[in-house]
Amino acid sequence: MNIYSLNSIPNTVYDRVMKRSFGLSSNQGVQKRVRRVFEDVQTNQDRALLGEYEKRFGSTNKMSLRVTSPEIKNAYKQVDASVICALQQMIKNIRNVTNAQLKTKTDPAVVTEKGVKVWREWRAIEKIGLYIPGGKALYPSSVLMCGIPAVIAGCKEIIICSPPSDKGKISAIILVASDMIGISNIFSVGGPYAIAALTYGTKSIPKVDKIFGAGNAFVTTAKMLALETTSIDMPAGPSEVFIIADDSANSSYIAADLLADGEHGDDSACVLVTTSPVVAKKTVIEIEKQLNNLSTASRIRESLKKYGLIAIADSLKDAINFANNYAPEHLEIMTKNPVAVSKKINNAGSVFIGNYTSKSSGDYATGANHILPTGAMAKSYPPLGVDAFGKWMQIQRCTKLGLNSIRKTIETMAIAEQLPAHKYSTAIRFIK
Amino acid sequence: MNIYSLNSIPNTVYDRVMKRSFGLSSNQGVQKRVRRVFEDVQTNQDRALLGEYEKRFGSTNKMSLRVTSPEIKNAYKQVDASVICALQQMIKNIRNVTNAQLKTKTDPAVVTEKGVKVWREWRAIEKIGLYIPGGKALYPSSVLMCGIPAVIAGCKEIIICSPPSDKGKISAIILVASDMIGISNIFSVGGPYAIAALTYGTKSIPKVDKIFGAGNAFVTTAKMLALETTSIDMPAGPSEVFIIADDSANSSYIAADLLADGEHGDDSACVLVTTSPVVAKKTVIEIEKQLNNLSTASRIRESLKKYGLIAIADSLKDAINFANNYAPEHLEIMTKNPVAVSKKINNAGSVFIGNYTSKSSGDYATGANHILPTGAMAKSYPPLGVDAFGKWMQIQRCTKLGLNSIRKTIETMAIAEQLPAHKYSTAIRFIK
Repeated sequence: MNIYSLNSIPNTVYDRVMKRSFGLSSNQGVQKRVRRVFEDVQTNQDRALLGEYEKRFGSTNKMSLRVTSPEIKNAYKQVDASVICALQQMIKNIRNVTNAQLKTKTDPAVVTEKGVKVWREWRAIEKIGLYIPGGKALYPSSVLMCGIPAVIAGCKEIIICSPPSDKGKISAIILVASDMIGISNIFSVGGPYAIAALTYGTKSIPKVDKIFGAGNAFVTTAKMLALETTSIDMPAGPSEVFIIADDSANSSYIAADLLADGEHGDDSACVLVTTSPVVAKKTVIEIEKQLNNLSTASRIRESLKKYGLIAIADSLKDAINFANNYAPEHLEIMTKNPVAVSKKINNAGSVFIGNYTSKSSGDYATGANHILPTGAMAKSYPPLGVDAFGKWMQIQRCTKLGLNSIRKTIETMAIAEQLPAHKYSTAIRFIK
Repeated sequence: MNIYSLNSIPNTVYDRVMKRSFGLSSNQGVQKRVRRVFEDVQTNQDRALLGEYEKRFGSTNKMSLRVTSPEIKNAYKQVDASVICALQQMIKNIRNVTNAQLKTKTDPAVVTEKGVKVWREWRAIEKIGLYIPGGKALYPSSVLMCGIPAVIAGCKEIIICSPPSDKGKISAIILVASDMIGISNIFSVGGPYAIAALTYGTKSIPKVDKIFGAGNAFVTTAKMLALETTSIDMPAGPSEVFIIADDSANSSYIAADLLADGEHGDDSACVLVTTSPVVAKKTVIEIEKQLNNLSTASRIRESLKKYGLIAIADSLKDAINFANNYAPEHLEIMTKNPVAVSKKINNAGSVFIGNYTSKSSGDYATGANHILPTGAMAKSYPPLGVDAFGKWMQIQRCTKLGLNSIRKTIETMAIAEQLPAHKYSTAIRFIK
């Protein structure tokens, strides 16, 4: 890999790196196909979903969209005890972190005038849908990252949709992970069909109030379309890691973490910005060395070529500015004083501090959520958390005296905004 | 108006009432025109914006998109002292309520394993754009509702875009309201042009990280398009009020509040569900009586005809269920024990408790925010608040010992998910 100087990166490289491969396809073909799926599901309901099955697996006579409870029980037999054990530790840690996020369900009231009180109460979103990718990529960890906050928030109806594998069934490990956190409403439907079903509802699959979860360009495009009638978590795209390092950093660790991100797919983005030319050089050598031992090397090479960057910054300040501008999904800070650096970071989904916080630690086991904003969306979106599964409701109460104390303001503004009925609706409360 | 029984509303009426007029246009014509505006602004930048001016106002020789500081100073001379006074009380109350929403900028750390710490830090969104409608409707109150939380959150760059009136200038009251809360970055651009400029940035108008504010179908469609590259507050649509009343309610107040909502436009939605046939009948009579005195009567009549409903419920429970299903923007509760009813409400933007909390009190002066989810979006979106102007950043730190305590879980899951580099990126930290 080339090593660039941060303030003289060629424009073409800079643009490619900054833009990365956003999950949302502006490809009109993708948009048209997804819109057709939506129309199909809206019109033909379950038949549209089963039609997809027929195309892939032949007859759908014995097909049920909903996973049955014997199927879930049976799945446990197919999952190794060590995996169950790992899922248990993950669940414990994610629950711990998520519980701490929901501090109160009723805000203290603010008395803005004597007799005028305003407060907020928190309500869980009633019906939610989680989309869990399947097929080639298999992410039971994402079941936990989406599902645990939903359960803790208190969502009444939690639906999981996941595509069947080549054998026509959802993978056992996905079923087990779901069941372990108490979610048993699982439907074997994938891609834009699943998103359309959750958007409109069918006889089998309920219409939900919010759709969560990542997927390919078709799924992300479908989620944007779903926004016309429901709501979504965020437009999630390919994985990204950005590492800020000084000369105290370990190049083998840096290389390993860049490669871990790159193996998600050839559209992943891996960036190292370091103040140390030595670290930069050593990292390049380490990358080559480590790639030799990885079965996922070819897609990593591709992602490094397309969206990778190794750059030398004149100062930590420059590196931090660039990181804030890039707004990465994952940010690792391997410097002498990583906490001081983190205080200056404004835009990042999940931050990993110090040499021993490997990216994969947060992907699985620290308890932090791994569903994060990508494509510079970290400038405005937070990581997934319990907040996303509920909403505040605003409440206000005036006594007659209270209303009287703001009456003049209401009436003046109503006239200024040319809304006489607004004025009258307050004034009438004082007509004897 | 007809009075229906809640459990036997004709299907056509029910559908019309439940769907109401959502702000987002699925009209392909609107979508195409908005997309063309986006392409125009992306390609021609400021020239595209000025071109719109030329069409409306002739020569743009003297035209500047940015409002100058003498213009802002001069605006104060055109605004009545009583309005300044009203704005001051509004600002005080909105600030009070908004300040209380931002409780902490650093969550306490959760120690999930010995040596594994996870916490969150809050960061303001750096650059935001507020769209303030202009022209016929003039809402200086919306400047405060959007602008105050942005200032309190600490957003570094706050841009206001608002269309010029027929005289080619933004209304003085909008400029004054903005200046009073410390926002002076104001641009005279309206409609989808403004949203496109905030999305892509032009020479005059900076690209922002998130776009806030309501508008007509073109603006809302533009905001949905903006979502492909930036983020937005929510897809806001026409105003809605839903009143739950029992026989303790005052029909004149109910009628006045229904009419106040209806006067926002002929696409507004006004619903009364009461357990009292007497209240229903009296309200119908009151509506007719009050309409006679209102200059906005014709659009109110239109909105009542299209999206209005008066229905009698067998029980408060039925009324509450219907309200939760409808998920109104504004919900008024005029019953003997309104607080008990409010506890059972899950889906509503802003709740008004008791006979003296007029809808217009919350539109202007209680301190509550009046930018609220519409079109049943209250099922998943909260009212606008300080939270929308910032985001949590997730941070984690492992010691070597800490990483060791989750190492097995990471490695097991990495293998289960077929991601060998993920396994290696943790394992390498233990290779001597």
